[in-house]
Amino acid sequence: MTLANLAGVARKVGPKHRSGCPVNISLEVFGDRWSLLIVRDLMVRGFTTFQDFLESGEGIATNMLADRLKRLCKSGIVTSERDKNDGRRVIYRLTDKGIDLAPVMLEVLIWGAQHEQTGAPPAVIAELAKNRRAVVEETRRRWRERDAAPLLPWLGGPRTGHPGGRASRQAGRSHG
Amino acid sequence: MTLANLAGVARKVGPKHRSGCPVNISLEVFGDRWSLLIVRDLMVRGFTTFQDFLESGEGIATNMLADRLKRLCKSGIVTSERDKNDGRRVIYRLTDKGIDLAPVMLEVLIWGAQHEQTGAPPAVIAELAKNRRAVVEETRRRWRERDAAPLLPWLGGPRTGHPGGRASRQAGRSHG
Repeated sequence: MTLANLAGVARKVGPKHRSGCPVNISLEVFGDRWSLLIVRDLMVRGFTTFQDFLESGEGIATNMLADRLKRLCKSGIVTSERDKNDGRRVIYRLTDKGIDLAPVMLEVLIWGAQHEQTGAPPAVIAELAKNRRAVVEETRRRWRERDAAPLLPWLGGPRTGHPGGRASRQAGRSHG
Repeated sequence: MTLANLAGVARKVGPKHRSGCPVNISLEVFGDRWSLLIVRDLMVRGFTTFQDFLESGEGIATNMLADRLKRLCKSGIVTSERDKNDGRRVIYRLTDKGIDLAPVMLEVLIWGAQHEQTGAPPAVIAELAKNRRAVVEETRRRWRERDAAPLLPWLGGPRTGHPGGRASRQAGRSHG
């Protein structure tokens, strides 16, 4: 079996997807912007609740967020559980399958920072790009150990006095 | 400048995007399924024409394809040029910025093959995953040297007697 046969073999899969190509199937499963932004929030920002995602900065609508969370759970990328400290609260968490998106996320981040005006300093991006494996491993470690410290904290706005807290995120949220 | 400051710095970018996060901006630029499927066709299948993309197997609609190609050109990911052998024909090609999506594409492929039923044999995927750098470099080489041999030829259907030719792709196309 060579690489060249991959696409052919992949097409033997059933009619559930538009094609059997692994790239297509991946994109059918998580390949819309909102889904990947939720995965990002879970993966690098330490966000866990519906409210967290809602206030994430890109202005996702409530119904869109609910729909995407449902889909991500159905695809086995995200799982939901009750908060041990507050039984009324639902906590979302990446599954094994979800955390395996870390390399995708990192490459998307590096590409964006290298090719678009994001304000991310070239030196930081070069560092990320040089240490891909270590960055992915650190992302996995935080996930495994439920270390809530965000890898990329959301630091917008002038009143971010309480890093990681919801209040600080709300204060810093763009209302534009 | 530490990694932790990245998201904060990124937010200082103008209001053109919903947020300054490089992940968000990347996804705003190429993050819809159809755009990435066109990039895949250019990158690993050696496809170059509107007709090629149209017959790619996922059944993209003509107007959707035209729109996505326009957007990809506007974003500087794809460029169009006249075919040297047939001046009436437009040929699409990835730009430097476009070929830099190779690591994203590879990670999307690996994730899909590892986590979804694509029929891609685990051994091939393990090989890809072990040789990420080499696979990306080979993708770049083909692009640089305009080597049209597809990295992942589209081999569907029973009448694929002419690998890489349009006739074979049409014959193998799913009409379901």
